[in-house]
Amino acid sequence: MKIKDIGEIGLIKRCVKKIRLDSSVIKGSGDDAAVLRWARNRYLLYACDMLVEGVHFKRKDAAAFGIGWKALARNISDIAAMGGLPRHAVISVGLDPDLPVKFFDLLFNGMNSAAKKFKVNIVGGDVSRSGKIVIDVSLLGEVERSNLVTRSGAKIGDLILVTGCLGGSIKGRHLDFIPRVEEARRLVRNFKINSMIDISDGLILDLGRILRASKAGAKLYQNAIPVSKDADSFEDAVSGGEDFELLFTMGLKEARRFFKTELRKMKTPVTLIGEIVDKKEGYKIVRDGGKIESLRRGGYLHF
Amino acid sequence: MKIKDIGEIGLIKRCVKKIRLDSSVIKGSGDDAAVLRWARNRYLLYACDMLVEGVHFKRKDAAAFGIGWKALARNISDIAAMGGLPRHAVISVGLDPDLPVKFFDLLFNGMNSAAKKFKVNIVGGDVSRSGKIVIDVSLLGEVERSNLVTRSGAKIGDLILVTGCLGGSIKGRHLDFIPRVEEARRLVRNFKINSMIDISDGLILDLGRILRASKAGAKLYQNAIPVSKDADSFEDAVSGGEDFELLFTMGLKEARRFFKTELRKMKTPVTLIGEIVDKKEGYKIVRDGGKIESLRRGGYLHF
Repeated sequence: MKIKDIGEIGLIKRCVKKIRLDSSVIKGSGDDAAVLRWARNRYLLYACDMLVEGVHFKRKDAAAFGIGWKALARNISDIAAMGGLPRHAVISVGLDPDLPVKFFDLLFNGMNSAAKKFKVNIVGGDVSRSGKIVIDVSLLGEVERSNLVTRSGAKIGDLILVTGCLGGSIKGRHLDFIPRVEEARRLVRNFKINSMIDISDGLILDLGRILRASKAGAKLYQNAIPVSKDADSFEDAVSGGEDFELLFTMGLKEARRFFKTELRKMKTPVTLIGEIVDKKEGYKIVRDGGKIESLRRGGYLHF
Repeated sequence: MKIKDIGEIGLIKRCVKKIRLDSSVIKGSGDDAAVLRWARNRYLLYACDMLVEGVHFKRKDAAAFGIGWKALARNISDIAAMGGLPRHAVISVGLDPDLPVKFFDLLFNGMNSAAKKFKVNIVGGDVSRSGKIVIDVSLLGEVERSNLVTRSGAKIGDLILVTGCLGGSIKGRHLDFIPRVEEARRLVRNFKINSMIDISDGLILDLGRILRASKAGAKLYQNAIPVSKDADSFEDAVSGGEDFELLFTMGLKEARRFFKTELRKMKTPVTLIGEIVDKKEGYKIVRDGGKIESLRRGGYLHF
């Protein structure tokens, strides 16, 4: 039996069931970041993400600066999705000895720019020889206990909202996207957000993650979903990866207050795209013509 | 200009000079782990280490369990070298889709065994496709402020000590070594340790790191250095990497007290191998015959 036979999800399950965690871990793997007990009023958030040449980017056609930016920004996006602020990063890079220094400089400048913009301290790292470029960023963040949001808090009757537009990120936006830290912080500080995730593997798959964690169902409205002009199709917009937009749910009253008081203060559009329903009603989409279809998990998986 | 032309140290310098750190960072890159301000009486320690197939291990001839063990254990060794306790890890793995699941299971079991033995919570991770196996572990630890030890505190007159025996780890020990957490904790809790590092790139190179950080010189005694029976030669023992023993310095009085009260309580031998001298006296070794030679930096570098 090979890795590709059990798949990415099977692989992770296999590991998670063997792991033992002590009581200082509020939440281990299975969310955008781990949540650790630390100081009295704050949790530590902890996440990592690996980029591999030929899988996540190509050496020739991708801008080195963008690859570096993305390596840090997607971790920052994970911390934002928990309601937190990014704080400290360590970065491991595997490099081909024949790689031009100029390429590496641009790559590092991309990471460093993201670090400066989001006030992240790059506090350490490791370099190794490697045929293909590999970049693994691990990021620590912090969040006030009261502002923590996970995937598992969606409630029946919640409205489902999303920042920005979905789809077409492959045409370039995936290398220079702005992680939604500011938006997430405004949301968690001023409203009761019941669940949140960042869309890294497509809306359908990532909403599915919220539903599984929250033991809930959902109804999406096709005509409400904000599709990017770069998206090839609606299907592409809801199943293509790397949007790095926030997908979150909140109660009706809170949503009303949000639309009344906060929406116009935010630079980023926020769109209502559906509602959380009972798990037994399933995971469905109301198509433009009114037809209701069941959704299956879709999106990007490595194996 | 290529990566191999500027070398590993040049590469790291290039990055470090661009990085800006805020006041919550006590120590960024340049020690075994970063030191971060967090709770009132404790610092957070933060380190990462990447293992790449074909560079750090071979898929065919190395035991998968040992590779996994090592991936976590070398990070644990870094935390120990700061005087701290390991606490939480996130692990990124790049895997060949055609890798047998059995190999992966053993690899993960190795990591998980090290985690259990040293009470580390594996709280998250990332998996990616990759031609060569890549494992990057990032580890958080903690240390009481009073017990923190860095590379930079060696003082003229300090004695230089080392745990265990050096050399020959390539013959197998590098895959099942025991990180010296217990020894390090006994040392920092009961004695004033002025500087410490774990030997990952050979005694000569790693002592050189303490000397540079502490702006000091050293005199080593060849006949005092404990050479492993697996080492091919004395030269191999002091410049071969991956011993993962503790190298530390302490004042004469403290050392006397240590040898009198503590040494017999420790299961691991500790040997006096030299002394810290003024920087202008240089970095020297007294050979078996009495001849004094200057030491140049030696050991393992990736580029």
